[in-house]
Amino acid sequence: MAETEVAQVRFGIVGCANIARKVARAINLAFNSILHAIASRSIDKAKRFASDNGLDPRVKIYGSYDQLLDDPSVDAVYMPLPTSLHVHWAVMAAQKGKHVLIEKPTALDVGELDTILEACQSNGLQFMDGSMWLHHPRTVKMKEMLFDSKLLGDVNYIYSTSTTSASPEFFENDIRVKGNLDSLGALGDLGWYCLGAVLWAKNYQLPTVVTALPDVTTNSDGVIVSCSASIQYKEPSSSGATTNAIIHCSFLADTSMDLSITGSKGSLNLNDFIIPQRESSASFEFTLGAKFVDLHIGWNVKPERVVVNCDELPQEGLMVEEFTRIVAGIRTTPGVLPDPKWPEISRKTQMLVDAVKKSVDLGCKPVYF
Amino acid sequence: MAETEVAQVRFGIVGCANIARKVARAINLAFNSILHAIASRSIDKAKRFASDNGLDPRVKIYGSYDQLLDDPSVDAVYMPLPTSLHVHWAVMAAQKGKHVLIEKPTALDVGELDTILEACQSNGLQFMDGSMWLHHPRTVKMKEMLFDSKLLGDVNYIYSTSTTSASPEFFENDIRVKGNLDSLGALGDLGWYCLGAVLWAKNYQLPTVVTALPDVTTNSDGVIVSCSASIQYKEPSSSGATTNAIIHCSFLADTSMDLSITGSKGSLNLNDFIIPQRESSASFEFTLGAKFVDLHIGWNVKPERVVVNCDELPQEGLMVEEFTRIVAGIRTTPGVLPDPKWPEISRKTQMLVDAVKKSVDLGCKPVYF
Repeated sequence: MAETEVAQVRFGIVGCANIARKVARAINLAFNSILHAIASRSIDKAKRFASDNGLDPRVKIYGSYDQLLDDPSVDAVYMPLPTSLHVHWAVMAAQKGKHVLIEKPTALDVGELDTILEACQSNGLQFMDGSMWLHHPRTVKMKEMLFDSKLLGDVNYIYSTSTTSASPEFFENDIRVKGNLDSLGALGDLGWYCLGAVLWAKNYQLPTVVTALPDVTTNSDGVIVSCSASIQYKEPSSSGATTNAIIHCSFLADTSMDLSITGSKGSLNLNDFIIPQRESSASFEFTLGAKFVDLHIGWNVKPERVVVNCDELPQEGLMVEEFTRIVAGIRTTPGVLPDPKWPEISRKTQMLVDAVKKSVDLGCKPVYF
Repeated sequence: MAETEVAQVRFGIVGCANIARKVARAINLAFNSILHAIASRSIDKAKRFASDNGLDPRVKIYGSYDQLLDDPSVDAVYMPLPTSLHVHWAVMAAQKGKHVLIEKPTALDVGELDTILEACQSNGLQFMDGSMWLHHPRTVKMKEMLFDSKLLGDVNYIYSTSTTSASPEFFENDIRVKGNLDSLGALGDLGWYCLGAVLWAKNYQLPTVVTALPDVTTNSDGVIVSCSASIQYKEPSSSGATTNAIIHCSFLADTSMDLSITGSKGSLNLNDFIIPQRESSASFEFTLGAKFVDLHIGWNVKPERVVVNCDELPQEGLMVEEFTRIVAGIRTTPGVLPDPKWPEISRKTQMLVDAVKKSVDLGCKPVYF
């Protein structure tokens, strides 16, 4: 078997949710992966997904998740299931030796996530969550500028939103507002990104305290449909700066995906951090040393727009490629272990989601780390 | 006396603070006003201000505020004094028949402001605070789009910042961090704009409840140098929508002046709402009906940049012109009364500032209206 064939990771998709269409395409776009099988609880739904999305006729179609997990040709699974089902099926996948790429939120709480991570680790398997934006070259470029001490300086303040104006049908039927399916609601679905962005900007340092804001809205099931939170880093950095962050996530307002990071010397702004407006290139604004001109009748600098091309693969393709690069390494090179970076990112993000949820449940009391 | 001469409003500037340079220029740029006199507590400082700023040699220079207020040729005063001195000198000015244009924050609390407003009203005088951005044609344009129900829809969420990275000298010496001069600190100096923007976007409806966030930072004098607040409108609009707002003001982070307003159908974004980057034109971004394209690999629309020219007069010139237009009307036309709109805007903004301050003092407890 030639090395390229050995290196190619065969994916099984467990659950034919809408987001699976995007990732199925990404699996086929990425150079080192191939879609091998899909499964739904109903064979008809799986067949419809295959035909609707023009999948290769060689893709195996299963009418149960178990059947897919029993297929020895499947190396890795992508799992876009309702959150409440993650712990069962991800553990099952790991026990059957499948690497796990799972949609966010990764679990209902960090305890469940730990169960999944332990199953992956004890079986020598890679775990990664589906936060695509972390893999965009724009994100890489922003991080370079963020951690260049001559540029932004100490991060003083972070603000991030993820909002979408959901339809009446969504509020009636979508799993993301059902207490028994995705009890984290907008916090898990959208706030995941905002909290992940805060951790990302702080190089995955955990905060001191998280406090939900009083603007939380829940539906009749008690599921969060809109909320905000204050995230505080009280331990000063080497230069004495502390960091405060505010996040806002909501199914009740028009689409926004804002990320602003303000440092001691500059700031970084973008309004589409999760899904870039255009697939092939994305941008952000960077302002360095902004002061007012004499008489305060204008600014000394204009924000600089930094454009980053993304024309080889879309961000979800880059995510799949990063995942399968690690998986292929584990499979082909003795002694290569899973990369702990990705489960750690997921785990810390889940910890922040849990903290906001806990603060909401406590009536907006602070939750300390 | 010709009508144009009658209509020209003669200004006295009480206090030679730095911001007075900008307003002195604006008074001279505006068509219906003229700078008649300046006063400082020290005649030397007043003389230096006049020569440093190339004032017309006919401008009278006083070494005390009382002398300026006793000058019968002064029709109106502009007052950039430390906040703690506002109530004394603004009331004094009103008692001497001078119309009052005063820097923000208007007073240490709404009780003091009411004393000023009563003095102005009982003497038939116009009151206005120095919130220049309200007079910019961009602000007028944004409001048109905001209140066009076919565009933004109901306002669901407002976010506003005003931050500046203050120098060590500022923290040592500036009146805005001194408990006995400007005890409202960053909240009064910067938060004033953010809270004013929330009120502006809600057409000056007062909120239900204001809650300071736990990220407040005070200096050794107990003065707020950084804080945030949640502002909630719990009473639904005619279509059932409620509004949440978050504001952040700080002397501890690099320059930002962000305003984002998210409605049910669109959103509006700008990063320089208080002082536009350029004097002669300003812009904002407007996004209408943003959704994701199929597969969620991009957006269906790009934000539209709306550019608004401001080439006749800068925003502070327009402020002076609006103020003097009203003053000239009162002075020349019997029966014309002061415009209640401007004191009402100031008073509601001060009420919100007071509420955030009270919430901070109560340890971030909610303050109800």
